[in-house]
Amino acid sequence: MKSFRVLHRDAHTRARAGELITAHGTVQTPVFMPVGTQGTVKAMTPADLVGLDVRIILGNTYHLMLRPGHEVVQDMGGLHRFAAWPRTLLTDSGGYQVFSLSHLNRVEEEGVEFRSHLDGSRHLLTPELSMQVQAALGSDICMALDVCPPLPSAREEIEQAVDRTTRWAQRCRQAAAPGQTVFGIIQGGVHRDLRQRSAEELMALDFPGYAIGGVQVGESPQEALEVASFSADLLPEERPRYLMGMGTPEDLLDLMEMGLDMFDCVLPTRNARRGTLFTSRGRISIKRAQYLRDPAPLDPDCSCYTCRTFSRSYLRHLYRAGEILAARLNTLHNLHFYLDLMSRARQAILADDYGAFRRRTLQQMAEVS
Amino acid sequence: MKSFRVLHRDAHTRARAGELITAHGTVQTPVFMPVGTQGTVKAMTPADLVGLDVRIILGNTYHLMLRPGHEVVQDMGGLHRFAAWPRTLLTDSGGYQVFSLSHLNRVEEEGVEFRSHLDGSRHLLTPELSMQVQAALGSDICMALDVCPPLPSAREEIEQAVDRTTRWAQRCRQAAAPGQTVFGIIQGGVHRDLRQRSAEELMALDFPGYAIGGVQVGESPQEALEVASFSADLLPEERPRYLMGMGTPEDLLDLMEMGLDMFDCVLPTRNARRGTLFTSRGRISIKRAQYLRDPAPLDPDCSCYTCRTFSRSYLRHLYRAGEILAARLNTLHNLHFYLDLMSRARQAILADDYGAFRRRTLQQMAEVS
Repeated sequence: MKSFRVLHRDAHTRARAGELITAHGTVQTPVFMPVGTQGTVKAMTPADLVGLDVRIILGNTYHLMLRPGHEVVQDMGGLHRFAAWPRTLLTDSGGYQVFSLSHLNRVEEEGVEFRSHLDGSRHLLTPELSMQVQAALGSDICMALDVCPPLPSAREEIEQAVDRTTRWAQRCRQAAAPGQTVFGIIQGGVHRDLRQRSAEELMALDFPGYAIGGVQVGESPQEALEVASFSADLLPEERPRYLMGMGTPEDLLDLMEMGLDMFDCVLPTRNARRGTLFTSRGRISIKRAQYLRDPAPLDPDCSCYTCRTFSRSYLRHLYRAGEILAARLNTLHNLHFYLDLMSRARQAILADDYGAFRRRTLQQMAEVS
Repeated sequence: MKSFRVLHRDAHTRARAGELITAHGTVQTPVFMPVGTQGTVKAMTPADLVGLDVRIILGNTYHLMLRPGHEVVQDMGGLHRFAAWPRTLLTDSGGYQVFSLSHLNRVEEEGVEFRSHLDGSRHLLTPELSMQVQAALGSDICMALDVCPPLPSAREEIEQAVDRTTRWAQRCRQAAAPGQTVFGIIQGGVHRDLRQRSAEELMALDFPGYAIGGVQVGESPQEALEVASFSADLLPEERPRYLMGMGTPEDLLDLMEMGLDMFDCVLPTRNARRGTLFTSRGRISIKRAQYLRDPAPLDPDCSCYTCRTFSRSYLRHLYRAGEILAARLNTLHNLHFYLDLMSRARQAILADDYGAFRRRTLQQMAEVS
């Protein structure tokens, strides 16, 4: 990452508009990053993503280190070249998937031992290896390896996770290659004091950006938003703030109001493949019988290829027939919806109108959903 | 169909180049028609197909009458509008799938009774209904309902199929709506005299185009090509000749030499989804370990998006990871390969060089396969 600047703060909320510059271009914030789990945002080509003006995508360290292997990706010129992605790339640390996908994981001070969900092979993910893998992938923004206990967990366990996360963050900084950008991740569960301690300890390490991790891991949606809100205020004003792995359009509207800058979530792409589509008037489950002869576009307010070209009737048919094109057209639409929402939010922030924009948008989305 | 003209005959073979004009544009022949089974060429958007300069696709009457139902497609403005396909559309009669996919089909003089492969519901497909369904779909070129016995069958059964095919062809002509273009289909198995009788009886009905049906239904590949060859000579010079449901690139090179004009086959699209890719140097099975670190494009001679953008290494990764993008990129490439082959064949015909072109191309394709 070359630089990050906050360009404007909304006059009435904590929302802010900024600009993040990397070797692969400029990312305007707040930004939603589509998830490219296995070196592809599912069903999309890089050309599709550029067509949507996606500026940054996320790649998953865990998946790519296991298949095809980070050495393979490195030999092929890094993930940018391998996947033909010309713009900014952020990779996670691999930690989250180790905890959620792998078998028999065991956390020790050295790292996390786990078995691959693909073939059962045994691996040890350490802070140093996470840095090395992300460097091999050639990521523009790497994430430090953190310890993310599921909720509810005993306060003591969360406290230990915070402490270990700090020690691992330090090891990540030390292991980072020259020029490798690493963001720190704060933990602390729903405990305000632990979040504060985590933030302070990481800020002492002076990362160029900070993420809030360990949200939506078992707590209520309301608790998750509260954690995000008070954690956002713990982070430095002049650095990008990334809320990991969340959320719905409604969540994003809330999270932007808290002054958070970066977001990622599988929701738009996964929901698309399952036939749940986001529109300006709420969610549509395209498989429903009511759309059998519906000649209207998915979202009459949307300008994406799917909405410009096809009817709900056709999209329902594709989905019910299990056609690949359903996944494609639905993903294109949902990503366009998310990107457009972020873009309009940013305009509202720049116009000191974010609060009204948020209320108006939430109201409209509630009409159908 | 508005017109068909043979523009040029190769000086040394039976191959010919022509032009077929419909309400939805001009189709240069010989032509390969991608198969759009359920109202979509699998994994492709209409924009992709237009990008490949596909001028005509095939839709399946059987699939669309069962799901979403031809009345639904008609209510949505016909298949062109429903699927946003702006160019020429040919539909089959539904007969082939009734025989191959449905359960408990029974052929009687009135039509074929069958049970849907989707829900077991009972249907009767008659020549009149096939015409009505294809009219509802709004097809530019409709196919007559024929009787296609599997091979081997007793000569007597094939003879009865020929006779019934003629009677059904007559009923199709009578049932056709004003302006509805219907092609006749000749049957007769591997029997030269029965093929001749079928061709003569159908030509007496004066169809604007003729298809050779009942090939690759159990006979050897060599027999199929022999049937195609002598059947082609039975058909009128001035009408388009369509060989149904076949074949490989090698087959197409043979079939074009026989003076056949139109072809369809699921091979390029189905093989693509299964990881078998056609290249100028033969077939590639992309899942093979040898491509793990292969930085080369699939086919260095190919100019498609897939070959311009991605390595074999990446394509192998996508295929092994089960990514939707694998199906997309592979389909795009295989269709491009087929379209390009046809386009170069046509140029060779126009240059009176088809024989040499065929030999050269076959030789090159044999290098790897």
